Amino acid sequence: MQDIPLGFELSAAEAGFKYKNRPDLALIHSHVPARAAGVFTTNLFQAAPVLTARKNLNRAEHCRAILINAGQANACTGKQGLMDCTRSLEMAAELLGTRLEEILPASTGVIGVRMPMHLWQESLPALVRGLGESSGQDAARAIMTTDTFPKTAARELDLHGRRVRFWGMAKGAGMISPSMATMLAFILTDMEVARRDWSEMLVAAVRDTFNAITVDGDTSTNDCVLALANGASGSGPVGPKEVRNVAMLIKDLCRDLAYQIVRDAEGGTKVMHILVNGAVNREEAELAARAVGNSCLVKTAIYGKDPNWGRIVASLGRSGARFDPDRIRVSLAGKEIFAAGQPVDMDVDLVFAPLLDSRDIQVDIDLGAGEGSYVLLASDLTEEYIRINADYRS
Amino acid sequence: MQDIPLGFELSAAEAGFKYKNRPDLALIHSHVPARAAGVFTTNLFQAAPVLTARKNLNRAEHCRAILINAGQANACTGKQGLMDCTRSLEMAAELLGTRLEEILPASTGVIGVRMPMHLWQESLPALVRGLGESSGQDAARAIMTTDTFPKTAARELDLHGRRVRFWGMAKGAGMISPSMATMLAFILTDMEVARRDWSEMLVAAVRDTFNAITVDGDTSTNDCVLALANGASGSGPVGPKEVRNVAMLIKDLCRDLAYQIVRDAEGGTKVMHILVNGAVNREEAELAARAVGNSCLVKTAIYGKDPNWGRIVASLGRSGARFDPDRIRVSLAGKEIFAAGQPVDMDVDLVFAPLLDSRDIQVDIDLGAGEGSYVLLASDLTEEYIRINADYRS
Repeated sequence: MQDIPLGFELSAAEAGFKYKNRPDLALIHSHVPARAAGVFTTNLFQAAPVLTARKNLNRAEHCRAILINAGQANACTGKQGLMDCTRSLEMAAELLGTRLEEILPASTGVIGVRMPMHLWQESLPALVRGLGESSGQDAARAIMTTDTFPKTAARELDLHGRRVRFWGMAKGAGMISPSMATMLAFILTDMEVARRDWSEMLVAAVRDTFNAITVDGDTSTNDCVLALANGASGSGPVGPKEVRNVAMLIKDLCRDLAYQIVRDAEGGTKVMHILVNGAVNREEAELAARAVGNSCLVKTAIYGKDPNWGRIVASLGRSGARFDPDRIRVSLAGKEIFAAGQPVDMDVDLVFAPLLDSRDIQVDIDLGAGEGSYVLLASDLTEEYIRINADYRS
Repeated sequence: MQDIPLGFELSAAEAGFKYKNRPDLALIHSHVPARAAGVFTTNLFQAAPVLTARKNLNRAEHCRAILINAGQANACTGKQGLMDCTRSLEMAAELLGTRLEEILPASTGVIGVRMPMHLWQESLPALVRGLGESSGQDAARAIMTTDTFPKTAARELDLHGRRVRFWGMAKGAGMISPSMATMLAFILTDMEVARRDWSEMLVAAVRDTFNAITVDGDTSTNDCVLALANGASGSGPVGPKEVRNVAMLIKDLCRDLAYQIVRDAEGGTKVMHILVNGAVNREEAELAARAVGNSCLVKTAIYGKDPNWGRIVASLGRSGARFDPDRIRVSLAGKEIFAAGQPVDMDVDLVFAPLLDSRDIQVDIDLGAGEGSYVLLASDLTEEYIRINADYRS
């Protein structure tokens, strides 16, 4: 059982936006004003809750709550969608006795469908009444769409003699190739921290974790990571010396959640840990890693437990990263398989059959062209992904 | 029955490189020296036959033959692969009584496996003896890998009172996102044409046809288009006034073959004709079209006959093309479905169910930002693609 940071209460309830007979609403509430930070999708189409959460983050000094629904994304719904989003926050604000600017909205689900407002009206009172009755797992389950398990992570830290708790939850599954931010993730802590430090820690953590995963190369319209710090641990503010440690811990927590998202990729059976070294710079290392991690052919080979290094090097060759084909090295599951422009001489099927049974597959690439490196987590591609997405909407 | 251009003979034979009991070798031979032009993959890993064909094209004024094998790509095989390729051309040159520089090689199949040279030795005599006994369909069938039908196209032209014939064949199926050139395609004509004109026509045609298709966004190591013009029609050389007409005809023939490749995409059931208009420039129109055509989510929706425009606009939003989300318009199968930042009001399932039954689906996008346009042909993504690629190598 994970400890939720002090001063926070969670609730989950059923609104029935798309899913029936399961919670599809989650509410996070802080007894005391919390520092909020957020990172959002870079998709040009930004969903109404993304635009609204952005605006509220800029307007309000503090935040009191996060309101999340699953099933409808409220994206590409125009001005009506923005009005619907604001209206749901008004209702929640009244029930919570707070201002609507202090609530951050987040939505995930089908794009382009208008939210049925009467469902908000009917479900919000029970959601607010239920605060404190839901566990972290309950809340994480309420925000799932095609996810198959709830994703949470917790960490602790000793700060000025007090225990400080960190807790986060995320949802993912499909349309995952976050850029700048990702899917939905929520991070809570009872630490006290300056607004700017909090925001910088979040941005840095997201860059190397949520932004470094891919399921299908598609960046959602609703991606966001929201983080609240309410100071309820009583530890006092984080000082300049402690910032680095805390930032590492936040990144570690984000990496844990990001891994779970790839682990639960739609239809996924494998997680590739793609490490590119020796690129001309970080940008080219990322190009190379993404070419491999988004290649349908590499993904299907890994699914088929086929040590098909030819598809890996072919995707590197079209990635846009600069290198000399005769100087690169590729290892799969810890064994070198391609070096100096040629396959390493061995019985690949015999050697790799047992190694490729694991869920986690290490793909190590050295481009031999410089010092740039990048790590990307990527799922495989399976018949189940197709089945899920060929009839997700209906 | 298509007419092969005058002066050319075709042959097909079994070597057994990977496939058994079916032809996997094709030979194209011209009685008279032919003008050759070629366009090749931009993948940094270039297969041995690509490097060799490039070199021969540069060295020899004329070309006499094209030698193609299916099943083994002879890619990422290092210096040994280059020596193997040259050796196979030496054997063929001796049997044909020509110089090895006058033969262009092409290979398609598994990456990274060395060609068994004794199979060349055993099969080449029968292949050369069989010249003239194979039809265009026979040759096109011999170069197939996961293709489900042979791809050929023919055109004719009246030039200076003589009939001039054009014939081409191609193979595709997977690892299709050509860049500069594509998969394997071969174009023959008995027209007489200057070397430079022939090359320019080919490059221009490839840009708008083979380079404007995608199956899975993966660019092969072996892509090439080779074109021979032997002048055997006796029409005399193409003059400056006729170049434009001939170029249009070549492009038309290439488009026909390119369409067949997408039509026969691995596991494919649909062909999306993605037309982007109103982009800032052609490059951004292409970015937008490729984001849509390579989106796993768009491809699975089209497979599922789901008018899920939300996935189309989400992929446009992450494409890198610049536009105002409130100004774009999207039509699916001829019906507008998204405009002015919002879905068009209608019962989408009722309206689109019959329209999405067709094999060919028009996707028209207007970004409302400029004059740039691009047309991309893209396949859908199905369980069958996964099955084929999860165990293609074994």
